[in-house]
Amino acid sequence: MSTQVSQLPEDNDMSPDELARAAAQAMYESDGCTRALGMELLEVRAGYARLSMAVRPEFLNGHQTCHGGMIFSLADSAFAFACNSYNINTVAAGCSIEFLRPVLRDEVLTAEAVEQVLSGRNGVYDIRVTNRAGETVALFRGESAQIRGNVIPVAT
Amino acid sequence: MSTQVSQLPEDNDMSPDELARAAAQAMYESDGCTRALGMELLEVRAGYARLSMAVRPEFLNGHQTCHGGMIFSLADSAFAFACNSYNINTVAAGCSIEFLRPVLRDEVLTAEAVEQVLSGRNGVYDIRVTNRAGETVALFRGESAQIRGNVIPVAT
Amino acid sequence: MSTQVSQLPEDNDMSPDELARAAAQAMYESDGCTRALGMELLEVRAGYARLSMAVRPEFLNGHQTCHGGMIFSLADSAFAFACNSYNINTVAAGCSIEFLRPVLRDEVLTAEAVEQVLSGRNGVYDIRVTNRAGETVALFRGESAQIRGNVIPVAT
Amino acid sequence: MSTQVSQLPEDNDMSPDELARAAAQAMYESDGCTRALGMELLEVRAGYARLSMAVRPEFLNGHQTCHGGMIFSLADSAFAFACNSYNINTVAAGCSIEFLRPVLRDEVLTAEAVEQVLSGRNGVYDIRVTNRAGETVALFRGESAQIRGNVIPVAT
Repeated sequence: MSTQVSQLPEDNDMSPDELARAAAQAMYESDGCTRALGMELLEVRAGYARLSMAVRPEFLNGHQTCHGGMIFSLADSAFAFACNSYNINTVAAGCSIEFLRPVLRDEVLTAEAVEQVLSGRNGVYDIRVTNRAGETVALFRGESAQIRGNVIPVAT
Repeated sequence: MSTQVSQLPEDNDMSPDELARAAAQAMYESDGCTRALGMELLEVRAGYARLSMAVRPEFLNGHQTCHGGMIFSLADSAFAFACNSYNINTVAAGCSIEFLRPVLRDEVLTAEAVEQVLSGRNGVYDIRVTNRAGETVALFRGESAQIRGNVIPVAT
Repeated sequence: MSTQVSQLPEDNDMSPDELARAAAQAMYESDGCTRALGMELLEVRAGYARLSMAVRPEFLNGHQTCHGGMIFSLADSAFAFACNSYNINTVAAGCSIEFLRPVLRDEVLTAEAVEQVLSGRNGVYDIRVTNRAGETVALFRGESAQIRGNVIPVAT
Repeated sequence: MSTQVSQLPEDNDMSPDELARAAAQAMYESDGCTRALGMELLEVRAGYARLSMAVRPEFLNGHQTCHGGMIFSLADSAFAFACNSYNINTVAAGCSIEFLRPVLRDEVLTAEAVEQVLSGRNGVYDIRVTNRAGETVALFRGESAQIRGNVIPVAT
């Protein structure tokens, strides 16, 4: 085990932003859904994440616009990377989303998650989803709850 | 065109529930996302829909539980079938979801959408998502707004 | 203390609905805000509460309709009586409300709170606010979290 | 009436922020509820409002903390002043609030409303409610819908 520990990121030597990136990288590798939907991790810092996702033909609903569930999924993943950025396992308790503009085929969406409050084990994160023209297509708010365990092993 | 119209469902001869089923069938066929995620349409009536979806390995997130976006997608599709059941094009304005219980691999989820209020062009629908054991895993509330046009052509 | 305890409701001898009513009565007496707004407790059972409130002239906003905060307050009180009905101190974590119809002067509103889920310490309650004509004026959803302590002393 | 009109603010000569303040002043004077609860208007600009409110003894609930409905009322009024700041009558369609910290007797709360999106007739506003220590006690999100009419007469 000691060999293995020596190769682990030593999180007490990392800055908060380095720890956030290391946790995000590990989460991304184990998060098959986020990768299956083609999301890319653009930027992660403590309490912050930015992701992008191209709208595929199979994301379209019966109105030939992007299914709300796919827009939600992008925002929810950005939320997850932001609220797990302290390397403490954190889950979504509840989320709300306002759909402001239809999203068409071949669009590329970006979701930016910004921490609003972190008070004890509970946090609130706001995620803005924009299209290539920079227009807001959805606003998402997520409430997080920290649970037990770490995202990446802590080298102590 | 007259030949084609004679083959269309004549919605003024249909009961509200028959119209709901005809609209849902047409939506389902054109909704690539709902089909790509493997959702099945179990029951549709006026203001009501029930769908199921098996949780696939690629739906799992970094915590090895079903990604919240996939649970939301199922609830959102149930909402869409329920609020479009009057054969008037209807979109989601906003939605909220509470996650109550983690969903594991190989689970099969059912979402039941029930209209709470339809007042003018705006409606509120509640969707309960349950697992195979009948436990509630999520509660979703959607606000709908009717727009122009019909789901299936109206034979007048 | 023993004298005092003998006069307290002995909650282990009460049915769940009797306990709910005893807890509600104690809460109502100590809840100055609910009484100051003129709310009346119509019915309380385990996981359920129904309250009414007359709309006073000072509840009107600049549009001369009832201020959303007053409608919210009624729904929030109904939520509080329903989620504290097990005699375990319970607080609101988050709430959402949809305003569906304006409320005019001299209206009397009724709020009915129904438990949707109680899973561990967390619950979800739906509250429907109706006017005298029975029309739904607002739908409220509350997420509750049980904390320490009891509403009324437990005679053990 | 023509005499009166000549004394009205001529909104086409006002800057957006002057119009916002004139509309807010008129709303405040006709909004009996906001005044009855003791709210003060600290600052209004186009798409922005900041209000304060002292927590009175009669605002306390059965837990001896400020009733959620009173916190909501302050946030909802801030929302109303911000979304009516363009001098177009605007109402709340739906709101959500997260309660993050209990509010005790004698506290003074401040609510700051910031426009997130205004797209056609629909907007989203975020309101942060803080205590005297600057801690966030609640986060509120409101969805607005513009209706007919103006807050103050337009001198054309």
